[in-house]
Amino acid sequence: MTDKHLSTQPYKGVRDFYPDDMAIQQYLFDVWAQTAESFGYERVEASVLEPAALYKAKGAENEEMVNEQTYTFTDRGKREVTLRPEMTPTVARMIAGRRQELSFPVRWYSIPNLFRYERAQRGRLREHWQLNCDIFGATDFTADVELIALAHQIFLNFGADESMFEILINNRHTMRQAYELLGITDEATVTAITRLNDRKDKIEAATYEAELTKIVQDQKLATEITAMIESDDPGDNQVVAGLKELGITNVRIDRSLARGFDYYTGTIFEVKDTHPDNRRSLLGGGRYDNLTALFGGEPISGIGFGFGDVTMRDFLETHNLLTANITSPVLAILPMDRTLNLEGQKLAQNFRAAGLSVATDISERKVGKKISTAAEALIEYVLVLGSDEITASSYTVKNLTTGEEMSGTVEELISQLTAS
Amino acid sequence: MTDKHLSTQPYKGVRDFYPDDMAIQQYLFDVWAQTAESFGYERVEASVLEPAALYKAKGAENEEMVNEQTYTFTDRGKREVTLRPEMTPTVARMIAGRRQELSFPVRWYSIPNLFRYERAQRGRLREHWQLNCDIFGATDFTADVELIALAHQIFLNFGADESMFEILINNRHTMRQAYELLGITDEATVTAITRLNDRKDKIEAATYEAELTKIVQDQKLATEITAMIESDDPGDNQVVAGLKELGITNVRIDRSLARGFDYYTGTIFEVKDTHPDNRRSLLGGGRYDNLTALFGGEPISGIGFGFGDVTMRDFLETHNLLTANITSPVLAILPMDRTLNLEGQKLAQNFRAAGLSVATDISERKVGKKISTAAEALIEYVLVLGSDEITASSYTVKNLTTGEEMSGTVEELISQLTAS
Repeated sequence: MTDKHLSTQPYKGVRDFYPDDMAIQQYLFDVWAQTAESFGYERVEASVLEPAALYKAKGAENEEMVNEQTYTFTDRGKREVTLRPEMTPTVARMIAGRRQELSFPVRWYSIPNLFRYERAQRGRLREHWQLNCDIFGATDFTADVELIALAHQIFLNFGADESMFEILINNRHTMRQAYELLGITDEATVTAITRLNDRKDKIEAATYEAELTKIVQDQKLATEITAMIESDDPGDNQVVAGLKELGITNVRIDRSLARGFDYYTGTIFEVKDTHPDNRRSLLGGGRYDNLTALFGGEPISGIGFGFGDVTMRDFLETHNLLTANITSPVLAILPMDRTLNLEGQKLAQNFRAAGLSVATDISERKVGKKISTAAEALIEYVLVLGSDEITASSYTVKNLTTGEEMSGTVEELISQLTAS
Repeated sequence: MTDKHLSTQPYKGVRDFYPDDMAIQQYLFDVWAQTAESFGYERVEASVLEPAALYKAKGAENEEMVNEQTYTFTDRGKREVTLRPEMTPTVARMIAGRRQELSFPVRWYSIPNLFRYERAQRGRLREHWQLNCDIFGATDFTADVELIALAHQIFLNFGADESMFEILINNRHTMRQAYELLGITDEATVTAITRLNDRKDKIEAATYEAELTKIVQDQKLATEITAMIESDDPGDNQVVAGLKELGITNVRIDRSLARGFDYYTGTIFEVKDTHPDNRRSLLGGGRYDNLTALFGGEPISGIGFGFGDVTMRDFLETHNLLTANITSPVLAILPMDRTLNLEGQKLAQNFRAAGLSVATDISERKVGKKISTAAEALIEYVLVLGSDEITASSYTVKNLTTGEEMSGTVEELISQLTAS
């Protein structure tokens, strides 16, 4: 050991979760899990380590992305390994691996941590957690309706109302047909328009039309396309209609919605925060016709979304909805001095057997300080333990919020504490 | 995309958790978390990525271990990063980082995934999950008693009884004193005996004595040491006495217990399976006087243990105690044909609002097949949805286990299902 001390900072771009932050994280994960399970989704997981080939397989452009934006290294067996940057390839791999045994449609959710090698930027994290929900093997539009209803229900289960967020829906396939109706069939032109649409709400209207004109080389056509894109008439979009049938009203068609990923082929959707301070995309997803293509076999269609922990937390903070699953014990037993510590442990054991969570303060602090420490730790009840109490087998429990006290045997106190 | 298909196998040495395995994993984690919280332990987490210096700092021997047995790589910012092989250094880093704000004793638990770069060996995993429980800043022996009582309680909470496992206890400090009484004060000799003891139950008694004689170069002394080591008299071991006071009877002193880690300084302990088919160490831990030494500042004492998911699962399987937190929905709604799928979603929404978990089968299967699929998925109730039911607003729910049926409006069915 040298005199130079190690830093207590975590690795750059990742977070330590001390109890307060962990309680928030657990709250997010619990609401996510409960909501997904209420829709019949089963939980899955995998390792953060994946063969790099899983991400590189989609072509040269992807290979560059993998090399530059992911944690990829070579292990001592000369295998290229990547810390997963997204969950969809893993889930597709798992679906493909058991396609014979699985009973479709399959509904899966997971809460993986994902890694991106970001260039050093203020506040950009290299690791985050993400709720992923997917249905595989169902092509019916009601699968899309269900998945988006699940996303909607997550917000309600966190205490949000429909004024706080909106659901934007588009369809890659319908857009392709709409372009065809306007005489645009060339693949490269459709892709160029889609990429421009992806930036539409970040640029001026005039810039948009100018760039569009440049792409289609026809000003009149550009105006027609703009009118089509900007129309909020849902047309015969069954997903929008279906969601309205379920009583979901904060949903609208947005034909400029593009979503980045190339693999989407049908419905795409996004949930946006309506708060002026946090006007951003909260979650997004869509349908892909054959996500298991890399693994061979008959195509399996899927629709899914991802929802990040940081984004979720920002939304809840913005709307003042953030709470936490605090794991503080209900009762703290405070021995008057260290000779009573073992008696404290014995007493704690009795309360625990009744289902109460109990800590004993075995520090060298004076009792008054022990009480204030318990209060700071948000512990509800304290029991000061002296030898008189032990001799009499009668104890006093104090509620630190109300100041109320109750006395009695362990059995009497248990029945009062478990009743309250 | 090429014609060559990707493998659906995970990376070597890691596991995919399909729903059945994930349900078991969740069951393990939930019992771990609930037990730790009932003792007043707060949950913490950190990233799997840690600066490599955290593991290399303890000297050249450690540096070799880090290079050979861990996943360590250099990121593009020239930082050396390690996938954590154990949680204790991380927790020590976090304790040291907030030593001013924390109110000691601190009780923390975590359920991290840990990585080891194992040479290719049948069944050896490169990633596993581990429950870690620690108390920091309490030197009183009742902290040791509490932590071991917590380990004991975990077994009981999984349904085990005391005949299925035993707790072995030793103390590094006491052993040092015992060697001193026998005239052995040389540090290297003590270390050599300790290392020999670590192998004691794997070698013959004669081999043990022969090797011991070689170390101390005195046959009579070797016999004396052996007698001391093999005595099961707890002497004045307060921890053993304290555990007995708490009614824990499957505990004994084992002076041959060494535990691998160098940093232990006081109590060390291990829980062993008593089943002849699984006679192995299940969890282990101990006390260290100054675990935050690497980060400077006043010494902080800690006592902790780690308990792996694979070991836990093996124990439960051996004793026929394994169960799982199945997340199957309670009710499956089975539309007669796809035109009724949206009605199915609407109906599902009503049941979910009452707290029931519901899936709708939107596959193209015939109803009979939908019912058997629900049964295979361990779903308790099914509701077959035809247009007659919708017109009449009256539905029939069937219990797939008992065959019992109940009919009525959604409200009537909800009140029956939530009552059962």
